[in-house]
Amino acid sequence: MIKATDKSRIKQIQLKIDNKTKPVGALGQLESLALQLALIQNTEKLTINHPTVLVFAADHGIASRGVSIAPSEVTTQMVSNFIHGGAAINCFCESLGLAMTVIDAGIKQPLEPSPSVLVLQSVGRGTKDFSIESAMSDSQLNECLALGAKVVNNVIEKGSELIAFGEMGIGNTTSASTILSALTGLPAVESVGRGTGITDEQLALKVSLVELALSRPTDTDALSLLREYGGFEIAQIVGGMLTAAQKGIIIVVDGFIVTSAALIAHALEPNVIDYMVFSHCSKESAHMKMLDYLGVRALLDLDLRLGEGTGAALSIPLIQAACAFYNDMATFASAGVTV
Amino acid sequence: MIKATDKSRIKQIQLKIDNKTKPVGALGQLESLALQLALIQNTEKLTINHPTVLVFAADHGIASRGVSIAPSEVTTQMVSNFIHGGAAINCFCESLGLAMTVIDAGIKQPLEPSPSVLVLQSVGRGTKDFSIESAMSDSQLNECLALGAKVVNNVIEKGSELIAFGEMGIGNTTSASTILSALTGLPAVESVGRGTGITDEQLALKVSLVELALSRPTDTDALSLLREYGGFEIAQIVGGMLTAAQKGIIIVVDGFIVTSAALIAHALEPNVIDYMVFSHCSKESAHMKMLDYLGVRALLDLDLRLGEGTGAALSIPLIQAACAFYNDMATFASAGVTV
Repeated sequence: MIKATDKSRIKQIQLKIDNKTKPVGALGQLESLALQLALIQNTEKLTINHPTVLVFAADHGIASRGVSIAPSEVTTQMVSNFIHGGAAINCFCESLGLAMTVIDAGIKQPLEPSPSVLVLQSVGRGTKDFSIESAMSDSQLNECLALGAKVVNNVIEKGSELIAFGEMGIGNTTSASTILSALTGLPAVESVGRGTGITDEQLALKVSLVELALSRPTDTDALSLLREYGGFEIAQIVGGMLTAAQKGIIIVVDGFIVTSAALIAHALEPNVIDYMVFSHCSKESAHMKMLDYLGVRALLDLDLRLGEGTGAALSIPLIQAACAFYNDMATFASAGVTV
Repeated sequence: MIKATDKSRIKQIQLKIDNKTKPVGALGQLESLALQLALIQNTEKLTINHPTVLVFAADHGIASRGVSIAPSEVTTQMVSNFIHGGAAINCFCESLGLAMTVIDAGIKQPLEPSPSVLVLQSVGRGTKDFSIESAMSDSQLNECLALGAKVVNNVIEKGSELIAFGEMGIGNTTSASTILSALTGLPAVESVGRGTGITDEQLALKVSLVELALSRPTDTDALSLLREYGGFEIAQIVGGMLTAAQKGIIIVVDGFIVTSAALIAHALEPNVIDYMVFSHCSKESAHMKMLDYLGVRALLDLDLRLGEGTGAALSIPLIQAACAFYNDMATFASAGVTV
């Protein structure tokens, strides 16, 4: 059970924000962010020690159907790129002072251990093709949830107070779209987008495969949907998010795929959303529909459509700035400002 | 004369960006930002040494007419708050690792020297009420342009490669609205907004004062408009922006008031815009009209309406991240990714 944050504190926190030397509301979204952070941390002084990006990677059986611009091999190649520091998320973490860990949740071609950056907790060499059968077994699903929890617990034990979730997995926008449609009833044609840039033909195929998957009779609870349509990385992220919220840690949600994990986590434990900061609105068109469904507003809107946790990473300086003004800004009284 | 950046380099820079290990265009606005930065710096490796926020403060005769939520005294009180580190912009600079300097460009109640943070270059104790007479004299205008240039030159000599412009001045949204209307022909009722939160009565008064000011016969060149309707802080910012662009330094534009200075600078020297990064879209409704007029898109949209350079400061990590990916991201060839 995840505890909701204590909303009876809102008035007192808002008063603190309103006494800062600025017109009421003048810091816009940063004020609502500070309020959320203060509710999560329940302390006078907010801290964001050891902000960490976790990038979960896995392969998808559906990729063999040609729904992506790249073949499954690219998942492993990109994980290797993460390990060697060459990807966008590496550059952003380096630039923004963030720790980063990559998790093999189930890629097709396992890599050599790289203990400092790569956590090996694969539950299989890619999911099954979910358009025709369950993506994973019940035992794989449970394993994913437990392993996601484990890696998050490790990061929290090392002192992280903020965990940003990112992903890599050729084919995983198809999973995310199917989860969105299955949870909300949105037609496939509205939940499916171009991912990283597929053709019209691929888009039509992707829609038809999502429709095929959705036509298969299945239980409609969130865990069943995750087992049927999910990916190993998505399922491990769900486990990680639930654990982070249980521990009162700030969760930073990246783009379309990570938000599909947030949808599942929210369906399982509605209070998890109290701990989630939505970092950006992706160019993937249905991402906005996910955010609307959850009733949340993202911080950034930069037409990103890369994943990896890049949007989540880019939002962290805003979260740090919200803490800074909440902690350190003078009040009208202390600064002698007479408004 | 400000030189345009060399657009013949676009193809080569874009090729470098497109060879990075990501789908083409997947980093959205950060890619166009990296392109702009590469054009400005004209080097293989982009650098943002000593990013600095300059906060120009001045008072406005128009404030005595009651167009703001606060009286002119608050300008000096807030400058004092900046000096003592208690304002939002201080907290953001501290959190984001930015240098900050405050400039007295013409506040009503001068403060004691604080050499490490405050530059005293006042050209008068506030402008005249521009609804009925010229805000400043020609000699004050020229002095402002030269002093803005001087402080920017000093910062560049200390090694700054990026200068963010911010402002403080009770009454200065009225100046900014009038400049917008005078330059673009937009009716006052569309260029005037609520600033930091005025009442309906104040809003109506503000519109009528802007209309009154615009009805006064005056030359229509940008410098004349700046003299008639500007503020000492706005005019010093114009001088600073022109100098920064001449030196090939990245200019980060804050919100509504700083963008009014950008409008003037652009009218004087259209190429200045090549050096400008527009940090955020303010909640002040006519700010979007300014950005549309200039044909630019801002990085952030956080409903900020504070000024001080707060939006500009918050955008700097994005600029740093754009440099980081441009400099350090692997290519498909170097990373062995086979897309």
